[in-house]
Amino acid sequence: MMVDKLILEMKKSENIVILPHIQADGDGLGASLALGLALKKMSKKVKILLEEPISFTYEFLPGKELTQLYSQGIESEFEKYDLAIALDTGDIERLGKRAPIFEKSKVTINIDHHNTNSEFACFNYVQAGLSSVGEMMYSLLDIMELNIDKDIATCLYTSIISDTGGFRYSNTKPDTHRIAAELIDKGVDVAEISRRVFETNSLEKIKLMAHAINSLQLYEDGKIAIISIGEQTMKDEGATEDDCNGMVNIGRDIQGVEVAIMLRECDDNSVKVNLRSNGYLDVSAIANQFSGGGHKKASGCIVKGSLEEVKIKLVDSIKKALMD
Amino acid sequence: MMVDKLILEMKKSENIVILPHIQADGDGLGASLALGLALKKMSKKVKILLEEPISFTYEFLPGKELTQLYSQGIESEFEKYDLAIALDTGDIERLGKRAPIFEKSKVTINIDHHNTNSEFACFNYVQAGLSSVGEMMYSLLDIMELNIDKDIATCLYTSIISDTGGFRYSNTKPDTHRIAAELIDKGVDVAEISRRVFETNSLEKIKLMAHAINSLQLYEDGKIAIISIGEQTMKDEGATEDDCNGMVNIGRDIQGVEVAIMLRECDDNSVKVNLRSNGYLDVSAIANQFSGGGHKKASGCIVKGSLEEVKIKLVDSIKKALMD
Repeated sequence: MMVDKLILEMKKSENIVILPHIQADGDGLGASLALGLALKKMSKKVKILLEEPISFTYEFLPGKELTQLYSQGIESEFEKYDLAIALDTGDIERLGKRAPIFEKSKVTINIDHHNTNSEFACFNYVQAGLSSVGEMMYSLLDIMELNIDKDIATCLYTSIISDTGGFRYSNTKPDTHRIAAELIDKGVDVAEISRRVFETNSLEKIKLMAHAINSLQLYEDGKIAIISIGEQTMKDEGATEDDCNGMVNIGRDIQGVEVAIMLRECDDNSVKVNLRSNGYLDVSAIANQFSGGGHKKASGCIVKGSLEEVKIKLVDSIKKALMD
Repeated sequence: MMVDKLILEMKKSENIVILPHIQADGDGLGASLALGLALKKMSKKVKILLEEPISFTYEFLPGKELTQLYSQGIESEFEKYDLAIALDTGDIERLGKRAPIFEKSKVTINIDHHNTNSEFACFNYVQAGLSSVGEMMYSLLDIMELNIDKDIATCLYTSIISDTGGFRYSNTKPDTHRIAAELIDKGVDVAEISRRVFETNSLEKIKLMAHAINSLQLYEDGKIAIISIGEQTMKDEGATEDDCNGMVNIGRDIQGVEVAIMLRECDDNSVKVNLRSNGYLDVSAIANQFSGGGHKKASGCIVKGSLEEVKIKLVDSIKKALMD
């Protein structure tokens, strides 16, 4: 079995580097830290190599001392490493500037849950049905009979809640909850982690939210909700791209709304578009019309034009789709 | 054991009325519908008597055909009932106008998880350590060996997520997750229920949110966040008291905030105050100073004066407390 091969490779190796995808989220980061802490217990030399600094949201995670930030020229430092493990990474491009370090490693392992995984390593362990790599990692550490302590449990729990929206997405299976139960048994602080991951906003984001709400327009008897954020507003509020995350949900969550759109004006006379569907309308088909892509319920595209021009095009396209 | 007595009483009775507390929330309503559906399977005649209509949020719950809305003069209808069961109800006052119906019933049962429960029934089954009556009800139906079908599971799951904030509060225990796993195994639609319970806002609430954010003021280097909503704003937006629910969290969730205050201007030159603490400050002590009450992390009071006057008093009191 693949799992046995992975375990054998980990046991054989002395120097191990772990690489989550670029812009590591709660799942990639949590699973990396959990595995790092577990390998440390096996007396391995471990580095978790990150493309960007850990975001404020995940600063509370244990195991940070195992992380190192990528910088140009550090490739040589990793030449002596005998195993590289990519986590939560669908293809080699998602390792960004760290891809050469992964590729030059003697042995490579790829542990992932994306159904589009390109199996780019020597050993590929992909379980597309699972909510998170955190869930996969729990089972792996369990098979390895490694003692999952409070720190490792905290990392795994964070992985799982990040990728399930706190047990709210349809990828939440009975076993997801069973694993959460085991992790809480190890001492995970549910309320504190939930607060850190889900209930902490920057002041800039909150202020941006007010602008977004004030820009709200409804079409087709409230079935279509549009929110737009201008470039000047972003500058005025000192907001970052990160602060725009999830803003489309303001429209999506309004009673009666079928399709929500968020328009974000960019510098170059183009508009970044986020689309969400609450029901039957497939918004990936809408995004496709504008050379974008995504899923049935969440998609995106970038469209040339002013906010007003793009808004008219999109509303028009969605109106037609709603009539079909 | 108390559980055996309850089961015996339910088995003996033919006509059973179930009463959740006034302004029934997801837990009270979900547990009532679950028990109602289960008793139906035992061929009992069941009514779930409600003080108010089911709110939009919980309209999707199965078993609505068992509910009846209280109206004056219906007391006589329940004279022939041989068992009344109060759910999620800390004391008899929480049954509102339905209290006499409960009290006149031949046998009464009280199933609750509030540690302040006054044990007002013939049979009182109180488990203060549990997250929700939904969790208690799951165990009860399990002991009764009643087949928990998808409809009952949907009601119980809604109970549990309502009272744990979707597995985010500190009352979420390992067994809470184990029960959730069993319920999802019965076919609960996790994503749809989560959307209904947590991700549906009225348009009025969203608009009120923008006003609230625009009113935001920070004190003490961003440790204190105050949001105020004027009576005129409520009228202008056609907002209800319900729309104000959770608004205090806008302030609480801002990075660096220790204490969040929401002020809601009332008609009679008084201000309704909500207080939330993120950390060490006990906001029930603040509320006590103004004849209010609550918990360490969530409290409230009503203070005479204008929005501005009340704001000054509260900030002053919290500043002092932060210095202690």
